[in-house]
Amino acid sequence: MTATTQENQTTTSGAAGSDTGTNIVLGRNQYGKAEVRLVKVTRDTARHSLEDLNVTSQLHGDFESAHTAGDNSRVVATDTQKNTVYAFAKDGVGSPEDFLLRLGRHFTESFDWVTGGRWAAEQYFWDRINDHDHAFSRNKSETRTAVLLVNGSDQQLIAGIEDLTVLKSTGSEFHGFPRDKYTTLTETNDRILATDVTAKWRYNTLDVDFNAVYADVRAILLDAFASTHSLALQQSMFQMGKQVLEAHPEIQEIKFSLPNKHHFLVDLSPFDLENNNEVFFAADRPYGLIEATIEREGNPTEAAIWANIPGFC
Amino acid sequence: MTATTQENQTTTSGAAGSDTGTNIVLGRNQYGKAEVRLVKVTRDTARHSLEDLNVTSQLHGDFESAHTAGDNSRVVATDTQKNTVYAFAKDGVGSPEDFLLRLGRHFTESFDWVTGGRWAAEQYFWDRINDHDHAFSRNKSETRTAVLLVNGSDQQLIAGIEDLTVLKSTGSEFHGFPRDKYTTLTETNDRILATDVTAKWRYNTLDVDFNAVYADVRAILLDAFASTHSLALQQSMFQMGKQVLEAHPEIQEIKFSLPNKHHFLVDLSPFDLENNNEVFFAADRPYGLIEATIEREGNPTEAAIWANIPGFC
Amino acid sequence: MTATTQENQTTTSGAAGSDTGTNIVLGRNQYGKAEVRLVKVTRDTARHSLEDLNVTSQLHGDFESAHTAGDNSRVVATDTQKNTVYAFAKDGVGSPEDFLLRLGRHFTESFDWVTGGRWAAEQYFWDRINDHDHAFSRNKSETRTAVLLVNGSDQQLIAGIEDLTVLKSTGSEFHGFPRDKYTTLTETNDRILATDVTAKWRYNTLDVDFNAVYADVRAILLDAFASTHSLALQQSMFQMGKQVLEAHPEIQEIKFSLPNKHHFLVDLSPFDLENNNEVFFAADRPYGLIEATIEREGNPTEAAIWANIPGFC
Amino acid sequence: MTATTQENQTTTSGAAGSDTGTNIVLGRNQYGKAEVRLVKVTRDTARHSLEDLNVTSQLHGDFESAHTAGDNSRVVATDTQKNTVYAFAKDGVGSPEDFLLRLGRHFTESFDWVTGGRWAAEQYFWDRINDHDHAFSRNKSETRTAVLLVNGSDQQLIAGIEDLTVLKSTGSEFHGFPRDKYTTLTETNDRILATDVTAKWRYNTLDVDFNAVYADVRAILLDAFASTHSLALQQSMFQMGKQVLEAHPEIQEIKFSLPNKHHFLVDLSPFDLENNNEVFFAADRPYGLIEATIEREGNPTEAAIWANIPGFC
Repeated sequence: MTATTQENQTTTSGAAGSDTGTNIVLGRNQYGKAEVRLVKVTRDTARHSLEDLNVTSQLHGDFESAHTAGDNSRVVATDTQKNTVYAFAKDGVGSPEDFLLRLGRHFTESFDWVTGGRWAAEQYFWDRINDHDHAFSRNKSETRTAVLLVNGSDQQLIAGIEDLTVLKSTGSEFHGFPRDKYTTLTETNDRILATDVTAKWRYNTLDVDFNAVYADVRAILLDAFASTHSLALQQSMFQMGKQVLEAHPEIQEIKFSLPNKHHFLVDLSPFDLENNNEVFFAADRPYGLIEATIEREGNPTEAAIWANIPGFC
Repeated sequence: MTATTQENQTTTSGAAGSDTGTNIVLGRNQYGKAEVRLVKVTRDTARHSLEDLNVTSQLHGDFESAHTAGDNSRVVATDTQKNTVYAFAKDGVGSPEDFLLRLGRHFTESFDWVTGGRWAAEQYFWDRINDHDHAFSRNKSETRTAVLLVNGSDQQLIAGIEDLTVLKSTGSEFHGFPRDKYTTLTETNDRILATDVTAKWRYNTLDVDFNAVYADVRAILLDAFASTHSLALQQSMFQMGKQVLEAHPEIQEIKFSLPNKHHFLVDLSPFDLENNNEVFFAADRPYGLIEATIEREGNPTEAAIWANIPGFC
Repeated sequence: MTATTQENQTTTSGAAGSDTGTNIVLGRNQYGKAEVRLVKVTRDTARHSLEDLNVTSQLHGDFESAHTAGDNSRVVATDTQKNTVYAFAKDGVGSPEDFLLRLGRHFTESFDWVTGGRWAAEQYFWDRINDHDHAFSRNKSETRTAVLLVNGSDQQLIAGIEDLTVLKSTGSEFHGFPRDKYTTLTETNDRILATDVTAKWRYNTLDVDFNAVYADVRAILLDAFASTHSLALQQSMFQMGKQVLEAHPEIQEIKFSLPNKHHFLVDLSPFDLENNNEVFFAADRPYGLIEATIEREGNPTEAAIWANIPGFC
Repeated sequence: MTATTQENQTTTSGAAGSDTGTNIVLGRNQYGKAEVRLVKVTRDTARHSLEDLNVTSQLHGDFESAHTAGDNSRVVATDTQKNTVYAFAKDGVGSPEDFLLRLGRHFTESFDWVTGGRWAAEQYFWDRINDHDHAFSRNKSETRTAVLLVNGSDQQLIAGIEDLTVLKSTGSEFHGFPRDKYTTLTETNDRILATDVTAKWRYNTLDVDFNAVYADVRAILLDAFASTHSLALQQSMFQMGKQVLEAHPEIQEIKFSLPNKHHFLVDLSPFDLENNNEVFFAADRPYGLIEATIEREGNPTEAAIWANIPGFC
């Protein structure tokens, strides 16, 4: 048995032939423990700090016989992966990215049939209550994300932000779009523009102060959204990505998935009232969905890690 | 037909007798439009402000014939209730409580068979991005709530906060509890204490600066949680309520529903590691659930409005 | 200290006086373990059966000193309550109602300061796969619920069904409603009527075959919804409740909370297409909300248990 | 400007140079309307039928100037895409796959700068109530999915099933796994095996009776899960995929994402009770996550469509 494709594509010559004349084989696969909820308290002084993560560990390698014969001799138990997450946390997390890199090194170095894997984390933020030493309230305004893909000696790393909800009450227009027989939308020079920012960016180096870059990317995204007079959500999105890449050479590309959260102007004319962009119905579904990659020119073919990132084009 | 109980209990003598020898009749009932999503932009200057609400309107009164005969001649359409919410928003919201009071007055004064109702709102908060005039990011740390119950001339009003997540990394103990044959829990002098604060308080007057009181109650809740050395979540909760009532005579009682969000210390001893309250598993279910009313002595019998508040004891 | 009201209302004369001249005291309270996920496999033969529940146990009684002084000497740990649920499941569940009654008896008989409590369960259903002895698929079409309130020797018991989604594609009208200045809705003689049935019924006896009654109530609700030509959702709801009470003398009253899930006819006229009630937009929010009690005439004042049931009028 | 990669990768030479010496350009992108909730009633006879879908339409092509300059002259409005979905539904849906193929043809043929796109649908199922002509209850046991990717003349089509929850109460073992310093799991010869089946399969032809194949794949998945004595969830999964491919030559590959929903045996020994695989705690998080592709030998490199499918390896 030999790995025949990128990652852990395997073929199983032993599988019985199908009635269509081709063998049916195991292709790309991964397994592990998902959503290991970890809270690490650093308490070397009376002033505690918190790291609150949701960690997923999935291994790549030769696990064919588990699939075809129920032979678990190479299946590092998902329970073992969970234990490892907690044991490693004893030494601190540092940043989600650094923590995932430690996990990735451990598993690929510990088991010779583990050729790589996918490790992911969400991080949740806490603010101190009144600058208290050990009392906190959760800051739910966003979720920080990280994904590491290891394939042999290749490491690809993505950081991200999710569900950062932003809105402009003016400074947004939408007009000049083509009209066909199914077009009924009227043009507007003043509308609410609102979205939940989900962005993921890929690093071109691992020599990064991940916490500092995260904080700065977050600030740039907010500032670019606020300061762009928008003729289309696409335009705001491109500006957000462009400004991130201009400020951070260690970022190779950034991808966005932005719902256009419609706020429809309510027709108050039946009640003899004007509505000068004051009263809106915030709709749930359907919503616009605007997605793109902003990247450095000459960016090579789609990096493999993106194929393992939910919901991105 | 006469109203026979508190609120809008009605009897229908016309209903056919059941085979059990008793008539089957319409009891307490209400109907309306739920979750009207309203965003109001105040834009009389270049510096806009946002009010973001989810409003529910339900009417009480004589709606018996709709139930028993499909006669809608008294059924103010739920669509009409929705329209009214949007039309009233044209003049501004002010506070959720003031807005609900306006709605309540309108419906009871406009339709003589509408004897009361239940109006409720959630409010969502937005922060300015970099002090921008018209760009905002949502502050999701909590949801503000309000419920108004009108029954004839009686108005009962409850304000609340939901999903304010707080955690203490020390300063929490739990011991001294009784042990029976089903008790296996070990005592502890140092544990994580975490909860999602959901609190609702009832005003004993309507002459209140609702926004100011909300902000102050929120601050008291956070401060009391942080500053109480806790021997039980019950004790923290009582302190939170007591301090709110001490500071706010206009509040008659406050009710809490607090999950005890367990953070279990991970056993790292199999890996030859100590765990000095550093590494925790944040569990989902089951969770403790601690609920109480803190009230002024002599508080009269349970106010009717509480029967119409989801999930409170 | 004496219990001063129904259930577990308590007063604490020891609480410090507030600055408003009244003492601040503990009122109604309850605590316990919520959402204990229990799967019981009955395997006395090769043909297994499943009982899948989500159980909540909350105790009422004298727990004042835990609140005011952090004294846990009467606080039966919520962990102990969880253990008791699992230990009792060893002997089987039978029905959610019977299981809650066993739990209620146990806690009130085991601890003399426990004067009552609230026990609740959700049950999830599983179908056999191809009549297999031990392979099942979950039937998610509904959730079964039960709530028991014990107050001394008084036991009140409610059974229910949640999230049974039903729809009629015709046989529903809505017209004849009053029109005011905020009314824009057009009348209709043919619309989609859709709702998620949430119903809860209170037994007037505990001598009931709870599983059999549940199955029959479910069947009656579906049949009544289907067979009623509806002039208002209120009318369908009343018929559903009336037919349940006519068939089941052991049921004293039934309460409904029914969203009117709007399906709006899409205007296809801009595309030169007719839409004869064929193409609909299924809206999320807002939605109508229709709630009522259907009861036997002479039903006494609102039973206390309803005050502890989320989301019912 | 020329498209430089598969799909709609574009470069924008006009973008200002970054301070890192490379131009920042628009990469892969798509946009459209998501979650268009469509209910189609077929009512040419008194016996109605329902098609209930959630449709997403996203276009690929040259939309660069919208991003870089806010020029919407090529941006087919997402509102127009929504209108098109409803207008096309007038002629019926047929199957999600056929409906998406119609949408794809329409948009690529109508706008010469639209070179492709991604169209997706979820379908929800309804059962008749008592064989009634126009009354239905929703069957929530699963969701059917479909995704179409069009790139010029290339059409890739995936069908799927989501959230089909299954459980075996015996006939599942897990042992023989490697043990390292982080391994604490005990081996077992009898455990509960439970998962939510999410599977997606890619067709190698469009000449398919999509509804019939869906029904048969569903039946095979259930039967294979039930009849496989499982030594690992991987083994059950492989059997499920293999049997689908053996029966359906029109399916080229099938991918699974299966949570291992842990049911932990409760330790009843402190209560002097045996627990012979009878009483289980159904855990939420963490959970195992088992994912693989089962495919025909010689399956070419990963099809591009998979990069646009959330959550699959």
